[in-house]
Amino acid sequence: MIFSEIVKKNRSYRRYYEDKIIPNDTLTEFVDNARLTPSTRNLQPLKYYIVDYDKRNTVFPHLKWAAMLADWDGPKEGERPAAYIIVLSDKSLTTGSKWDEGIAAQTILLSATAQNMGGCIIATVLNKEDLMKSLNISDNFSIELVIALGFPKENVILTEINPGDDFKYYRDAEGNHYVPKRKLSDIIIS
Amino acid sequence: MIFSEIVKKNRSYRRYYEDKIIPNDTLTEFVDNARLTPSTRNLQPLKYYIVDYDKRNTVFPHLKWAAMLADWDGPKEGERPAAYIIVLSDKSLTTGSKWDEGIAAQTILLSATAQNMGGCIIATVLNKEDLMKSLNISDNFSIELVIALGFPKENVILTEINPGDDFKYYRDAEGNHYVPKRKLSDIIIS
Repeated sequence: MIFSEIVKKNRSYRRYYEDKIIPNDTLTEFVDNARLTPSTRNLQPLKYYIVDYDKRNTVFPHLKWAAMLADWDGPKEGERPAAYIIVLSDKSLTTGSKWDEGIAAQTILLSATAQNMGGCIIATVLNKEDLMKSLNISDNFSIELVIALGFPKENVILTEINPGDDFKYYRDAEGNHYVPKRKLSDIIIS
Repeated sequence: MIFSEIVKKNRSYRRYYEDKIIPNDTLTEFVDNARLTPSTRNLQPLKYYIVDYDKRNTVFPHLKWAAMLADWDGPKEGERPAAYIIVLSDKSLTTGSKWDEGIAAQTILLSATAQNMGGCIIATVLNKEDLMKSLNISDNFSIELVIALGFPKENVILTEINPGDDFKYYRDAEGNHYVPKRKLSDIIIS
């Protein structure tokens, strides 16, 4: 796959073949890619907790899915993520970098997509403290993002919008998921 | 190139073959990749200003290079970036998303690396207002990041550090640039 194809294929997937397991080595490889990304002043404050298939049910209840789909509470059993990577910041190292998290998260998603998997960045974690306790994560860390991962079971269709149009994603009766994106000519300023 | 090779090759380059021009179509393609990245609530508040070879000298004096290299003021003439992409946020759309900028910037850098170019994310822009005036960017926008781009003329070597070691990048007498990265075992929490 050439790089632009990976970017295009990298959609925010929210339904998966839950029982198609992602091997631990593969999840570790995704983190190794994140390890080698640019970091503000090279401080590298981010750490990663890998949630494999066996631990997946500990994480799922803490996640808020697709705020814009009012009628949908998130993926049903059997279509939930097969794994997660939790992006943590090490409180002893952080200085409030704005960019490291997005850089790392996108790198993990692209890593998955390049191998025909997919994921979704989830920022809204209900009761982070509870989740950290359940996973035995020390309070030297804070949860920044949760990246859901799996083999996508969802058709995501990109559409284009004009300035001022509704940018909310939506689904049709068949469950196809539509994502409106701004046009290239509307995002290049000259 | 497989994806993990692109990630590894994607270093923060600060010296380039300045006169190896990046065609405008290629820069536009990088922005098109950024266009298709995940955006918080799909709001897509980021816009992009492409600075091509002819305009490069307008941007260069505004940039602060490699804060950690005390003896180095930035690349000399002939080794400066051939182009830039300025990541702007559209003030009429922003709600202070923390992640979109990093996601977009990393996608642009990986796009360049996949085509044997390279870049560097620069967050410290001296006098943003002046730069915006020089480029005729309306104050409906604010500058978030500047991405320097070009064909790298620099040898960047990754090393590994232990917790507590100095994480600062440095150069040797031959100008090789060393970047210490934390070990995989030190960034995976379990």
